[in-house]
Amino acid sequence: MNWQSDIIKTLEWSGTVINREGKEKVADEIAAKVKDGDVLGVGSGSTVYMALLAIAKKIKEQKLHIKAIPTSIEISMFCAKLGIPLTTLYEDKPDWLFDGADEVDPNRNLIKGRGGAMFKEKLLISSSPVNYIIVDDSKLVDKLGTNFPIPIEVFPAALLHVENELRKLGPESIALRPAKGKDGSVITENGNLILDARFHDIGNDLELKIKSITGVIDSGLFINYDVKILVA
Amino acid sequence: MNWQSDIIKTLEWSGTVINREGKEKVADEIAAKVKDGDVLGVGSGSTVYMALLAIAKKIKEQKLHIKAIPTSIEISMFCAKLGIPLTTLYEDKPDWLFDGADEVDPNRNLIKGRGGAMFKEKLLISSSPVNYIIVDDSKLVDKLGTNFPIPIEVFPAALLHVENELRKLGPESIALRPAKGKDGSVITENGNLILDARFHDIGNDLELKIKSITGVIDSGLFINYDVKILVA
Repeated sequence: MNWQSDIIKTLEWSGTVINREGKEKVADEIAAKVKDGDVLGVGSGSTVYMALLAIAKKIKEQKLHIKAIPTSIEISMFCAKLGIPLTTLYEDKPDWLFDGADEVDPNRNLIKGRGGAMFKEKLLISSSPVNYIIVDDSKLVDKLGTNFPIPIEVFPAALLHVENELRKLGPESIALRPAKGKDGSVITENGNLILDARFHDIGNDLELKIKSITGVIDSGLFINYDVKILVA
Repeated sequence: MNWQSDIIKTLEWSGTVINREGKEKVADEIAAKVKDGDVLGVGSGSTVYMALLAIAKKIKEQKLHIKAIPTSIEISMFCAKLGIPLTTLYEDKPDWLFDGADEVDPNRNLIKGRGGAMFKEKLLISSSPVNYIIVDDSKLVDKLGTNFPIPIEVFPAALLHVENELRKLGPESIALRPAKGKDGSVITENGNLILDARFHDIGNDLELKIKSITGVIDSGLFINYDVKILVA
């Protein structure tokens, strides 16, 4: 279909499809796991788009009935465009989920949230029994925090309090994420702000310490979640 | 002023002003603490209304300059009506705060949130160095949970996940708070739902355990906050 290759072209233009061949292979692996009747949790990232294209093809060829629980408006619209029926966490539980990540360490701990959807992504992973994280090898790091800060979703009125409390946890830097395409800060789909906090040492208790701060909605740090890593 | 006694009458009609004489005495105690230039955090509850009336009178008589940081739309409007200038946590930090509570135990731990504003109330207490909690003696309990459930503010899409996770903490009951005056559930000023969870035993770590659940915005359980209790 023409608009599908248009979308792939758009992804290429925006520079997000590096290593396209490897990603297509993993996208096919994901599509191969889809069984009739599955409820799929769908994260975000360029490989997620490609997996959705492969899944849509398989659904059509094999006349499968599957439903998707998306984690963002963007993915909802993409599923709708592909004719993949949407459902919600009110109606269904995901049988399994696929998503991307910004960093993966050797213990399969993750940093996510470059795209700003980490709260719903964490909610979906928390609700799903089986989770595939698709990354290319540029995302594999010896130590979390090597390339990315931890994105922290913050209730707007709590901004200064959260920043003060985060400083007590010893970050290298904290920055309010600026928007592009609008003035001011990024606003998440939940109406909140994002603080990007760089930490030199990310201990196993940092996720809980961040979440315990009043005004923190959640963070993009995923410690000890049950995930399988697929490397493109 | 006539509209002030109208408001007091409304409070009496709605049955919230029990022990009016005792509460007026505590309201005067609070007003006596107000100094020129203070930034006051203002919680909610019938005694808070009376304290604001006493403070407004003192401001007028002594030509004081004070500002208030409110925790709800209702209190914002009441301050505006009394001519008490409003400010925000973006611009100012509270010098001190006064608020109510639904239950106070002998260690000054609190349950708050009957009025649904516990998230902003906790944010304000967390930002304020000195906190006065005004209650009548019906709010003093040997053990938290005697009369009130713990109100938990929940991101709507996370409702089922949060309920499942809360069940693991051993509550006696969990109920989605229904609205009156509109169909369906209570929606907080932050666009979220409230789960009221009754616990027989409320340990010192329960507040953190609740907050650590993905999808919990915050709860009305206040353990080990630095508060002074004024009993009306």
